[in-house]
Amino acid sequence: MRNSKVVTLEEAIRRSGLHDGCTISFHHHFRGGDKVVNMVVDKLAEMGFKDLHLAASSLSDVHAPLIDHIRSGVITRISTSGLRGELATAISHGLLKEPVIFRSHGGRGSAIACGELPIDVAFLGASSADPLGNACGYSRSENAKSICGSLGYALPDARYAKHVVVITDDLVEYPNMPMSIAASDVESVVVVDSVGDSSKISSGAIRDSKNPRDILLAKQAAKVVINSGYFNDGFSIQTGTGGASLAVVKYIHESMLAKGIKASFALGGITAHMVKLHEEGLIGKLIDVQSFDKVAAESIKDDMFHQEVSAVDYASGVHKGSAVHALDIVILSALEVDVDFNVNVLVGSDGVIRGAIGGHQDTAADSALSIIVCPLLRGRIPCVVPRVTTLITPGKSVDVVVTEYGIAVNPARADIREKLEAAGLNIVDIHSLAAKAEAIIGKPDPLPFKERVVGIVMNRDGEVLDEIHEIE
Amino acid sequence: MRNSKVVTLEEAIRRSGLHDGCTISFHHHFRGGDKVVNMVVDKLAEMGFKDLHLAASSLSDVHAPLIDHIRSGVITRISTSGLRGELATAISHGLLKEPVIFRSHGGRGSAIACGELPIDVAFLGASSADPLGNACGYSRSENAKSICGSLGYALPDARYAKHVVVITDDLVEYPNMPMSIAASDVESVVVVDSVGDSSKISSGAIRDSKNPRDILLAKQAAKVVINSGYFNDGFSIQTGTGGASLAVVKYIHESMLAKGIKASFALGGITAHMVKLHEEGLIGKLIDVQSFDKVAAESIKDDMFHQEVSAVDYASGVHKGSAVHALDIVILSALEVDVDFNVNVLVGSDGVIRGAIGGHQDTAADSALSIIVCPLLRGRIPCVVPRVTTLITPGKSVDVVVTEYGIAVNPARADIREKLEAAGLNIVDIHSLAAKAEAIIGKPDPLPFKERVVGIVMNRDGEVLDEIHEIE
Repeated sequence: MRNSKVVTLEEAIRRSGLHDGCTISFHHHFRGGDKVVNMVVDKLAEMGFKDLHLAASSLSDVHAPLIDHIRSGVITRISTSGLRGELATAISHGLLKEPVIFRSHGGRGSAIACGELPIDVAFLGASSADPLGNACGYSRSENAKSICGSLGYALPDARYAKHVVVITDDLVEYPNMPMSIAASDVESVVVVDSVGDSSKISSGAIRDSKNPRDILLAKQAAKVVINSGYFNDGFSIQTGTGGASLAVVKYIHESMLAKGIKASFALGGITAHMVKLHEEGLIGKLIDVQSFDKVAAESIKDDMFHQEVSAVDYASGVHKGSAVHALDIVILSALEVDVDFNVNVLVGSDGVIRGAIGGHQDTAADSALSIIVCPLLRGRIPCVVPRVTTLITPGKSVDVVVTEYGIAVNPARADIREKLEAAGLNIVDIHSLAAKAEAIIGKPDPLPFKERVVGIVMNRDGEVLDEIHEIE
Repeated sequence: MRNSKVVTLEEAIRRSGLHDGCTISFHHHFRGGDKVVNMVVDKLAEMGFKDLHLAASSLSDVHAPLIDHIRSGVITRISTSGLRGELATAISHGLLKEPVIFRSHGGRGSAIACGELPIDVAFLGASSADPLGNACGYSRSENAKSICGSLGYALPDARYAKHVVVITDDLVEYPNMPMSIAASDVESVVVVDSVGDSSKISSGAIRDSKNPRDILLAKQAAKVVINSGYFNDGFSIQTGTGGASLAVVKYIHESMLAKGIKASFALGGITAHMVKLHEEGLIGKLIDVQSFDKVAAESIKDDMFHQEVSAVDYASGVHKGSAVHALDIVILSALEVDVDFNVNVLVGSDGVIRGAIGGHQDTAADSALSIIVCPLLRGRIPCVVPRVTTLITPGKSVDVVVTEYGIAVNPARADIREKLEAAGLNIVDIHSLAAKAEAIIGKPDPLPFKERVVGIVMNRDGEVLDEIHEIE
């Protein structure tokens, strides 16, 4: 068609004006199925670029090939919400000279919007795009290949990056509307064989858990929700990654029916459970920054009240009125919680990076009630500890910690403690949980951290919250 | 609710940091029914502000009260797409010291996006908003008062203004989604009795004409469309303001059915006629920067394929991939066309400002085929003239001029001329049309323009195209 922007990846890169030292960005809506990051960085390496700053909304196991590109100097800086797998391990052991900058999803959105994280070229995978660049995370064509639903984390990049390249495996006729990314924000469109494997969206941290301990924790957390004082008609809820957290919606379903309570909205990562409740009329609207499974990714295509939002509209702390400012209840997971209610979701108890900040900081800070679901132990690893290995979400943002050995309530929330006690729930002191864990496992040896800093954890307002050191 | 942004207008202004010399902006989606501009400027006057730059997407008859605010020095500069009525007449006679800057809708959008027209505080009327600021031009509440449909012209302001105040007469529960303006772009929400009179949206230049000459012109233009070579399955169309132009869709309807031709999209100001064809399956998608009547304003609320677009996504010449870049056919009106196919839609043949650039420049430039419908004479006023009073759309962008005395084709489009002649249409030389008008009316006296410049017409790329002088 006239004015088509379709070019090869190489040509798109050439037109972008990219040069050594630039910042390139990516989204992680395909999660473990992402094919865009590796494809683009391979091409950049082939074209001879060096010293690039890779600013992804998150990185995971599938991005292990970046290790070679770091060794060869193509990538010298990384900003991300999380790191997992071989890449995370290598970085924990000192692969990258510059520390990785970790930001929450809301923090990344506002850093991009406020100019703290300027992006030169955004490479944004899309499940469909027309030749002018209108793009989205689903497709109405018969050739739909890879769908991911919401493109929420890509939207700040689309809006603020100096140059935007849309990469799709399903080029459709103009106008590809409704669109998530508008053509006027797009410079080039690249058509490839595949941008991602949709079957891997709901893998890893957002799989539907059948683990009996997760189910127990989810049921306990549901009781906390129901008795918290916030479980009223018109309430709102978000569930973070992690099997127990995601499953909570299942276990409040019955109470919603029994008490005639409807939620006004569910926020954040949207799941099939939430879509079901929405379709039953029990959740008014779905506010979706990331579709956590294929059911959610399909629902956002056809349901006007399943609303895509950008990371900024979702969780920015700087932009007042982002959806977290209206959120009542959030249920989140943790790698570690400490006796001051501080949470770590990024670094394992072995000192190796293996997680992501995600929306943890954002939702905990702005919701009316934040609940952490966390087992006391994972195998031989204690999860309630005297001091978190790495500080991700400050304890002042955390209200309740649900473990299989009892529920701890932040002393600042005596109101909640009273309600949960009145409901007969097993309220315990968080120190006693930490002591119990230590009694079972013993006092762990201090971690063999080295001097060098391999990661910096930002808080959502752009200040340094903690450092991650190289581990032996 | 928590974090509500609802304040009084006075408080919203105070919080905005507005000071003398600032730029304030408004949209004109309520057209003749707008109540926001006068209400806000009255308040600013009362609060003692001076020397403000009023940057509206357009101004009309209803804004006559601005005359007093100009006299008292509250408003000292104006940027707009158009001016009509008493305000226009007063400005033509020298009311404002600084010349008014006239921009097309696409030109205004890109001027805002590119920083040429920086906005300090945008005051954006909305038909519904929630307490955090999610706002749109329709409402799902039972209290809906004033609806206008698309908020397309307000969206660049919402995105780029330093401070955004949403003004609504229908405060609804959070989340007011889908939204046109996202809460994260909004600083304050002001609730008032009425933001506009919806019954006046389809008044003035966009009323449904019953004028027999308009119908004749529309039928002729429909024949041009049908025989132009662009009337093929998947074609796209836009009709500008003016009774004849708007009516063309009615008269191609039958041919679409007869030939089995469907349009992929209709663009721009969306009318009830277009909604009807869309609902019949004859127009795939409606891309709506401005709902031209209440039927369109209601349709955009519930129809996923009736897509709101911003002025930038609609018609920016700078942002490649704005919808005009994909547009096949546009039908536009004119106050005057000259023998070089230049068009004037802003200044009357008496030298007095009485119109608006609108999307004229944008669509004529980027469409594959631009058709002007224009009577030879309006009463004793010639419309085909040797030289337009004011240059708005350069002749190189104009392909065909349809009058009741024949159809003129731009010599640069011999391909079109050939097709229309083959179809037996009455093709005439544009000089002969101008000569005929002059033969009937006589040669008009030169207009009594003075030295002083009262208006500057920008082209869509931000360069000066023409000047408008004070008239006696």
